[in-house]
Amino acid sequence: MALWDGRFGGGPHEEMQRFSESIGVDLRMFHEDIDGSQAHATMLGAVGLISTEEAEALCSGLEKVREEIESGAWTPDIALEDVHMAVETRLGVHVGDLAGKLHTARSRNDQVATDVRLWLKGRLEILDEQLARLIGVLLQRAEADGRILIPGFTHLQRGQPVWLGHQLLAHAWALSRDRERLSDALERVDRSPLGAGAMAGTPHPIDREMTADLMGFSGLVENAMDAVAARDHTQEVAAQCAICMTHLSRMAAELVLFSSREFGLLQLGEGFSTGSSIMPQKRNPDGAELVRGKAGRVYGDLQALLTMAKGLPMAYNRDLQEDREALFDAVETTIQCVSVMAGMWQGLSLRTGIYEEALKNDFLLATELADYLAAKGVPFREAHHIVGRLVKACEEENGDFSLLTLERLRAAHDSFEADVMEWLSPEGAAERRTSRGGTAQKEIARQIMLLRQSL
Amino acid sequence: MALWDGRFGGGPHEEMQRFSESIGVDLRMFHEDIDGSQAHATMLGAVGLISTEEAEALCSGLEKVREEIESGAWTPDIALEDVHMAVETRLGVHVGDLAGKLHTARSRNDQVATDVRLWLKGRLEILDEQLARLIGVLLQRAEADGRILIPGFTHLQRGQPVWLGHQLLAHAWALSRDRERLSDALERVDRSPLGAGAMAGTPHPIDREMTADLMGFSGLVENAMDAVAARDHTQEVAAQCAICMTHLSRMAAELVLFSSREFGLLQLGEGFSTGSSIMPQKRNPDGAELVRGKAGRVYGDLQALLTMAKGLPMAYNRDLQEDREALFDAVETTIQCVSVMAGMWQGLSLRTGIYEEALKNDFLLATELADYLAAKGVPFREAHHIVGRLVKACEEENGDFSLLTLERLRAAHDSFEADVMEWLSPEGAAERRTSRGGTAQKEIARQIMLLRQSL
Amino acid sequence: MALWDGRFGGGPHEEMQRFSESIGVDLRMFHEDIDGSQAHATMLGAVGLISTEEAEALCSGLEKVREEIESGAWTPDIALEDVHMAVETRLGVHVGDLAGKLHTARSRNDQVATDVRLWLKGRLEILDEQLARLIGVLLQRAEADGRILIPGFTHLQRGQPVWLGHQLLAHAWALSRDRERLSDALERVDRSPLGAGAMAGTPHPIDREMTADLMGFSGLVENAMDAVAARDHTQEVAAQCAICMTHLSRMAAELVLFSSREFGLLQLGEGFSTGSSIMPQKRNPDGAELVRGKAGRVYGDLQALLTMAKGLPMAYNRDLQEDREALFDAVETTIQCVSVMAGMWQGLSLRTGIYEEALKNDFLLATELADYLAAKGVPFREAHHIVGRLVKACEEENGDFSLLTLERLRAAHDSFEADVMEWLSPEGAAERRTSRGGTAQKEIARQIMLLRQSL
Amino acid sequence: MALWDGRFGGGPHEEMQRFSESIGVDLRMFHEDIDGSQAHATMLGAVGLISTEEAEALCSGLEKVREEIESGAWTPDIALEDVHMAVETRLGVHVGDLAGKLHTARSRNDQVATDVRLWLKGRLEILDEQLARLIGVLLQRAEADGRILIPGFTHLQRGQPVWLGHQLLAHAWALSRDRERLSDALERVDRSPLGAGAMAGTPHPIDREMTADLMGFSGLVENAMDAVAARDHTQEVAAQCAICMTHLSRMAAELVLFSSREFGLLQLGEGFSTGSSIMPQKRNPDGAELVRGKAGRVYGDLQALLTMAKGLPMAYNRDLQEDREALFDAVETTIQCVSVMAGMWQGLSLRTGIYEEALKNDFLLATELADYLAAKGVPFREAHHIVGRLVKACEEENGDFSLLTLERLRAAHDSFEADVMEWLSPEGAAERRTSRGGTAQKEIARQIMLLRQSL
Repeated sequence: MALWDGRFGGGPHEEMQRFSESIGVDLRMFHEDIDGSQAHATMLGAVGLISTEEAEALCSGLEKVREEIESGAWTPDIALEDVHMAVETRLGVHVGDLAGKLHTARSRNDQVATDVRLWLKGRLEILDEQLARLIGVLLQRAEADGRILIPGFTHLQRGQPVWLGHQLLAHAWALSRDRERLSDALERVDRSPLGAGAMAGTPHPIDREMTADLMGFSGLVENAMDAVAARDHTQEVAAQCAICMTHLSRMAAELVLFSSREFGLLQLGEGFSTGSSIMPQKRNPDGAELVRGKAGRVYGDLQALLTMAKGLPMAYNRDLQEDREALFDAVETTIQCVSVMAGMWQGLSLRTGIYEEALKNDFLLATELADYLAAKGVPFREAHHIVGRLVKACEEENGDFSLLTLERLRAAHDSFEADVMEWLSPEGAAERRTSRGGTAQKEIARQIMLLRQSL
Repeated sequence: MALWDGRFGGGPHEEMQRFSESIGVDLRMFHEDIDGSQAHATMLGAVGLISTEEAEALCSGLEKVREEIESGAWTPDIALEDVHMAVETRLGVHVGDLAGKLHTARSRNDQVATDVRLWLKGRLEILDEQLARLIGVLLQRAEADGRILIPGFTHLQRGQPVWLGHQLLAHAWALSRDRERLSDALERVDRSPLGAGAMAGTPHPIDREMTADLMGFSGLVENAMDAVAARDHTQEVAAQCAICMTHLSRMAAELVLFSSREFGLLQLGEGFSTGSSIMPQKRNPDGAELVRGKAGRVYGDLQALLTMAKGLPMAYNRDLQEDREALFDAVETTIQCVSVMAGMWQGLSLRTGIYEEALKNDFLLATELADYLAAKGVPFREAHHIVGRLVKACEEENGDFSLLTLERLRAAHDSFEADVMEWLSPEGAAERRTSRGGTAQKEIARQIMLLRQSL
Repeated sequence: MALWDGRFGGGPHEEMQRFSESIGVDLRMFHEDIDGSQAHATMLGAVGLISTEEAEALCSGLEKVREEIESGAWTPDIALEDVHMAVETRLGVHVGDLAGKLHTARSRNDQVATDVRLWLKGRLEILDEQLARLIGVLLQRAEADGRILIPGFTHLQRGQPVWLGHQLLAHAWALSRDRERLSDALERVDRSPLGAGAMAGTPHPIDREMTADLMGFSGLVENAMDAVAARDHTQEVAAQCAICMTHLSRMAAELVLFSSREFGLLQLGEGFSTGSSIMPQKRNPDGAELVRGKAGRVYGDLQALLTMAKGLPMAYNRDLQEDREALFDAVETTIQCVSVMAGMWQGLSLRTGIYEEALKNDFLLATELADYLAAKGVPFREAHHIVGRLVKACEEENGDFSLLTLERLRAAHDSFEADVMEWLSPEGAAERRTSRGGTAQKEIARQIMLLRQSL
Repeated sequence: MALWDGRFGGGPHEEMQRFSESIGVDLRMFHEDIDGSQAHATMLGAVGLISTEEAEALCSGLEKVREEIESGAWTPDIALEDVHMAVETRLGVHVGDLAGKLHTARSRNDQVATDVRLWLKGRLEILDEQLARLIGVLLQRAEADGRILIPGFTHLQRGQPVWLGHQLLAHAWALSRDRERLSDALERVDRSPLGAGAMAGTPHPIDREMTADLMGFSGLVENAMDAVAARDHTQEVAAQCAICMTHLSRMAAELVLFSSREFGLLQLGEGFSTGSSIMPQKRNPDGAELVRGKAGRVYGDLQALLTMAKGLPMAYNRDLQEDREALFDAVETTIQCVSVMAGMWQGLSLRTGIYEEALKNDFLLATELADYLAAKGVPFREAHHIVGRLVKACEEENGDFSLLTLERLRAAHDSFEADVMEWLSPEGAAERRTSRGGTAQKEIARQIMLLRQSL
C-alpha cells in the first residue's frame, strides 16, 4: 500500500517503481531518519499533539526498527520507496496504528531535508578529523625529513633549492584551508529544517527549536519554503570536497612523479603499492593514481548537483532527489582519499642525497647570483640579464656553474666580490631565504608551530 | 595470494585493498570477461601456444564459472580485486594449474579494455532499441493526436499555431540524431584491443584477427599502446549519452509543464505519477522530473571521464580504472530514462480544445497578418511594424484580434483586402505552412514516413 | 626584448607569442598591478633596498602609467606578454633604468597572485552590494505585494495556498546565504602573497606585513610556495558564484513561467523584455532566460578552474595562467545577473486575483482537511487517506471541494464538525500556518525584519 | 529603432541592452550571415517573392556591407543587438527600404541557426587540416627518430622497452579517431535550417533546397521546430573538441615530463619555450603547459553548452543565445592547441642513448623472462612468480639483471636454456614483439603506411 493510495486507482508501473525508488541510496541514512523521527515524536508529545505515552511508544518502537536494520534482522523492500516510508512502515509492525501519528505536522519534504543535514554533520566531522590527521602526518614528515634539500620546481623545471619541509608545508596550508572551508560550510548545514512541512509550515503548535535542540542543530532554517527547496548547502559541501580533491590530486601527482625511477626521491610502502599482472618488476603507485583519478569523480558529482537544481522553480521538485547519490559519493570519496593519502605519507620512505650534485651545479643557484647583484644595488632586471648570459656561456661549454671562478664573475660584472663564492651553496641559498614564509628552517619551524596549533 | 606476490613481501594495506578493489563495479562485466577469455583460450589452442585439449578444458572451465556466478552459487570476495582475477582464480578451482596458462600473451591492460568494449557493444544495442521504441511511440502519438492545435512556444510565450504532431516530430528527429551519434560511436567501440598485452604487443605468435572474430568485433585497435591507453571511446559514448539526456530533459520539462493545471494540456498516467505524503490531492509528474534531474548526473559522469584522463602520460595509469563506474552509470541511466520516457508517452492522455479560444484571439495570428502583407509585396520589416501597431491598439482596448474588422485593417494598410479575413484562422495558419518541414499536415505525414523508414 | 633574453638565442615563435600572451585578459587588472607595485616600491624604500627617492620616483612613474592606460593615451602591445611586463616596460619610459629595480625581491609568480587577489577583493565587494540590493528589492516586494495569495507549487503542481511574500522570502534567504558564502571566501582571498618570490621567499630584508597593509590585505599567505601555487581561493569564489547562479536560475525560471500567458501572474517591464523579429505580438522574458542560460556558463568556468589545477605538482605551472579568464567571467557574469534580476523585479507588475477561484476549489485545501483531522486526534496517515478519497470522489463527479458539505464530510469521518467549514478558506489556511517560518503574515513580517538587519 | 518597436512603448533598459547584446560575440560570423542572406535573397528572387532585380540589388548591397566590415570602414554599435540586425540595418543605408524585404519568409531563429552551422563548417575544415598536419609531424618523427629505444611506461614506472615510434603512433591513432569523430559530427552540422522561420515554416513558396545548395550544405534539417531548437550539433562538436583536448593534454603532459631534467629525453625548441622573470637558467615548457591547461577550458565550454539547454521546452528560448561564446571558444581553442602541438613537435630535439643502461639493467626485461618461460610451456602465472622472485633477489643484493647468469636462471627454473641470454637484450625484446600492433619496427612501418593513407 503506497502512501498516497487513498486517491490513486492503481499502483505505480513496475518500471516506474524501480526508477523512482531511492531506498538503495538513502537507506544509509537510517540512523539519521530515526534520530529525526524520535526528536519529532518527543516534541509532538511535549506540545500535546500526542500524549507523552504515545511519544514514548513511538520512540521505543523506532529504536526497535533501528536495531533491526542495524543487525540485518529486517531489510526493507524497494516497494517501500525510500528510507522514510520503510522506517514508518516497519514502525507500524511494532506500534500499530499509532505509527500513523508520527507524520503529524511533518512532510517527507522537511523530513528528507533534515536527514541529509544530520548525515552531513556526522560525515563532515569525520572528514575534518581525517584532514587533521593528514596535516599531522605532513608536519611529522616536515620535522623528520624536512632537511632534505630538493629543487623547488616550477614548470617541472628545477628552480631554486628548497628544503623538503617547505614543500610539505605548502600542502599542509592548503589542506588547512580545506578545513576552514568545510567548517564554514558546516555552519550552513547545521540548521534544522524540521517543521517546515511541505513548504508552508503547519497549523499545529509545534516547537521547532525543541526538535532542533534534540537533534543537535545550532539553528533553524527560517523560511519553510526555503527549508525544503534549498540545495545550496549540499552544493557547497560538494564544492569544498572538489577543491580538497584538487589538492589531493596535486599531492598524488607528486607521489607518482617522485616515486618514478627518473625522480627517485621516494619509495612508496608496499601497503599502498601494487604489482603488475604481466611485468614482474613493477611497483606501481596505484593508491596515488586512484586518488588523482577520483578528483574527476568528485568534480562530476559537483556538476551533477549544480545542474540538477538549475532552473527549478519553487518549491520541491523530484529532480532534487537525485542529489543524494552525488552528495554521498563526493563526501565519502573525499574522506577515503584523505585517509589513503595519510596512509601513503606515513608508509613511504624518502631517499636523501639524490639531488646533492644537481643542486650545486645545475644552475639552480642562478637566482642567488642575481639576488647577490641586486643586493649590491644593480637593478634586478640588469642582474637577471647578466646571470642569464653566464648560464648560456656555461651551457655552451657543456658545463655548469662549477666553471664559474671569481675572475669570470668579475668579468661579467664588477659588483661581484669575493663573498659571492659563499652564495654559491645550495644550503646557504635555502637558509638565506628568511623572509616571512621563505624556505629557511626557522620559517619552517614557525609554520609547523602555527599549523599544529590549528589541529 | 595476490597476483604479484612473487616479488612483494607483504600484501596491500587493508584500507588500500578496499580503496583499490573494483570488483564491486566490474563484476557486472563477468559475461564479457568470460567471453573474452574463451576467445583467447581458443586462439591460444589454434596457434599452438597451448594444446587443443587445454583450450577446450579452459573454455568449459570458464563456462562453469559463468554458471556459478550467474546462479549465485559462487560470489567473489573483494580480496580478489577485480573481475579478471576473480574469474581466473575460480577457474583454478575447476581446472587446476592449467588456469595459469590462460594469461599467456595477455595482460590485464588489454583484458579490461576488451571487456569494457564488449560490454558497451551490448548496451549500445539496447540503448538503440529503446530509442527506436521511443521514436515509435512519438510517431504513433503524432498520428493519433497530431491534429490537436496548440501554440508553438518561443520563450514560453505563445508564438504561432502549430499541430501537436509538428512538435512531437521535432523531438523525434532529435532522438533520431542520437541514434546516428551512438551508431557512429559504436564504430569506434567495435574494435578489439585483445593481444596488445601490457602496451607493447607480445612475442608469442598470437592471432588477433581470430579473437576479434570470435568475440564479434568488426575490427582491431591497431597500436598496442593505444589499445590499452585509449579512453576516447568511453568519453564519446558518455558524451552522446549526455546529449541524449539533454533531449530527454527537454521532453521531460514539457511533460512537467503541460501536465500542470495552468497548461492543462495533458494528464500523465497513474503508472508514472506519484502522490504526496501530505497533500492528498496531488498527482505529481515524478517520472518526468527524475528524467530531467538525471541529466545532471550524466553530465557529471562525462566530466568525470574527461577529467580523469586529462594530462595522463602514456600508457596505462590506474586513474583510468575509475572510468568504469561513470561509464556504466551514464549508459544505464540513459537506457532507463529513454524507456521511462516511452512509458510516460504511452500512458498519458491529451486534452483537446484547451487552446481553441486562445489560438483565435490571443494575437497568435499576428505573424499571419505580417506574412499576408509580405505576400502582397510590402517589405517584411514594414509589415511587421504595421501588425505590431495593430497588436498594441487592440491591447490598449483590452481586447484582441476579434476587434479587427476589414475596415480597421484597411485603415492600417491598404494592401489588406477581403481575403485577409480567411487568414485569421488558426487551422488555416497551420495548414498554409507547407514549406518543407513546415507545420502543415502533409509535411507531418511526410516526416512520419521518413522517420519510420529509419526504425 | 623579452625579459629572459639574456639567455635565449631567438624570441618566441610568432604563433607561441599569440598563444601565450595574456595581456588581452589581464590588462583589466592594471589598477591592481600598479597598486601592488607601488606598495612594493614603497616597502623597498622603507627597508633600504632602494633609496626613498627611488621609491618615490617609481611610485609617481607608476602613477603616470596608470593615467596613460586609463585615458587610453598608451595601449600595450601583445608582444609585452602580460600586464606586469607591460606596466614595467612603460615605467622604463618614464623613469629609465630605475624601472629595473622594481622587480627586486619579487617574481611574476607572487606579483600575479597579488593582482588577482586585489582584483577579487574589489569585485566581491561589488557583488555583495548587488546581492544586498536584490534582497532589498525582494523585501520591498514582499511588503508591497506580499498579500497576493498564490498556490505554493511542488512538482509544478498546485500544493497549498501561500502568500507571495512567503515565496519571495525563500529566495531572499537563499541569496543571503550566498552573501555569507562569499564573505567566507573573501576571508581566504584577503591574504597577501606578495614577498613569496618565485616560491622560496627572498634573501632580501623585505617587510611583507608592510606591503600587505599598504594594499589593504587583512593577513598574509604564510608559505611562499603555497602563495604562488594556490588556486583554491579562485575555485572557491567560482563555486560560490556557481551556487548563486543556481539560485538566480531558479528565480529566472519562475519569471519565465509566471509571465507566460498560462500562469499569467506577472508581466515583465518593457525595459527587460524584448520582441520578436517575426511575431509582432510577442513580449519575451529574454532577461530572465539569459540569466538562466548564463548559469551554465558559470558552471563551465568552475569546471575549467578545477580541471586546470588537477594533478599539477608544486609549485607554479603555466597551466594556472588559464585561471584568470574563467575567474573573471564567473565573477563578472554573476554580478551582471544579480543586477539584472534586481532590475527585473523592480520593473515587473503583478496581477492580483488570478488564483482566487482556483485556491478555493482546486483541492488546494486538501491538506487543511487532513490537518483538521490530525488536530482532532486522527492519525495523520489515516487522515491523509480519508481526504485522498474525498478528492477522488469529487474528481469523479467532475467537481471540486465546493461539493463538500458538512454532511458529506461527516459521512467520511465523524471527527469533522461544524467548524471545519471555516478551515476551507484559502486565507485562513495560509494564516493558520503560524509555526516558525510558516506562511502566516506575522512570520513573513518577522523574517523581513531579520533579513533587513543583515543588509 | 529596435526591430520590434511597432508594439513596444520604450526601448530596452540600458543595462538590459548591454546584457542581451550578442554582437560582441557573433560579429565574427558576419561572412556567414552575409553568405546566408545572399542565398536567401537569390532564392526569393528565383521563386518570385521579390523581383530578380531586387534580389540582385540585395546581394550587391550585402557585398558592400561585407567589404565595409572587413575593411573596418564601418563598425556596428551594440545598440544593433546582433550581427543579423547590424547587417540588415547597414544594408538599408545602401539599398533603402528594399532591405526590409530581405526578412520575408525568414526569422532570426532560422537565420542564426544557419549562420552557426556555416561558421562551424568552415572551422571544422580548418581543425581537420591542423589535425592532419599534427599527425603528419608525428609520422615524420616516427620515421626520423622512431628507433630511439625508451621504456614504455605504465603508472609512470618503466615497463617494457619500446621504440619511440611505437609511442608516437599511439598518439597519432588517437588523433586520427578525433578526425573521424569530427567528420561524423560535421555530417550533422552540414544540414541547412534556413526556411524554418520562427519554428513553423512559412506560407510563402520558398525553395529550401536551393538555399541549401547555394550555401554548400549537403542536406536539410527537416522539421522547422527542430531546426531552430536543436543544439545537439553544437554540443557534439564541443564534446569532440573536449575529447581531442584530452588527447592533446596527454601529449602535453609527456612533453613537460620528458623535457624535465629528470627525464631528459627531449629539449623543446626555443620558439615554444619561455624563460623566468626571476630564475635566469630556466627553459620552461609553457606551450605544453598551456595546452594542458586549456583542456579544462574546453571541458568547461562543453559543460556550459549542455547545461544551458537542459530542461528547456520547445522551441527557441533565449538561453540558447549563450551557446555561441562557448562553442566558438571550444573550437578556436582546439584549433590553436593542435597547431601549437604540431609546432612544438616540429621544433623539439630528442636525446638518444638516455635510457641505454637503464633498459638493460633496470628489470625492464622481466616480462621477457616470463614470456620465455611461457613459450617453453610454463603456465604464465607460474612464470610470472618465478621472475618476480628473481627481481626481488637481485634487488636484495642491490643489483639488477646483470647479476643473472645462466646458472642462476636454471636454478630458478630448469626450462631456462642457453638461448635465454639472447632474450635479455632490449632491442631484441622490442623486435620480438611482432604481434599485430606490437612495438617491432615492421609493425611501426605498417602503421605509418596506414595512417599516411588516411591523411
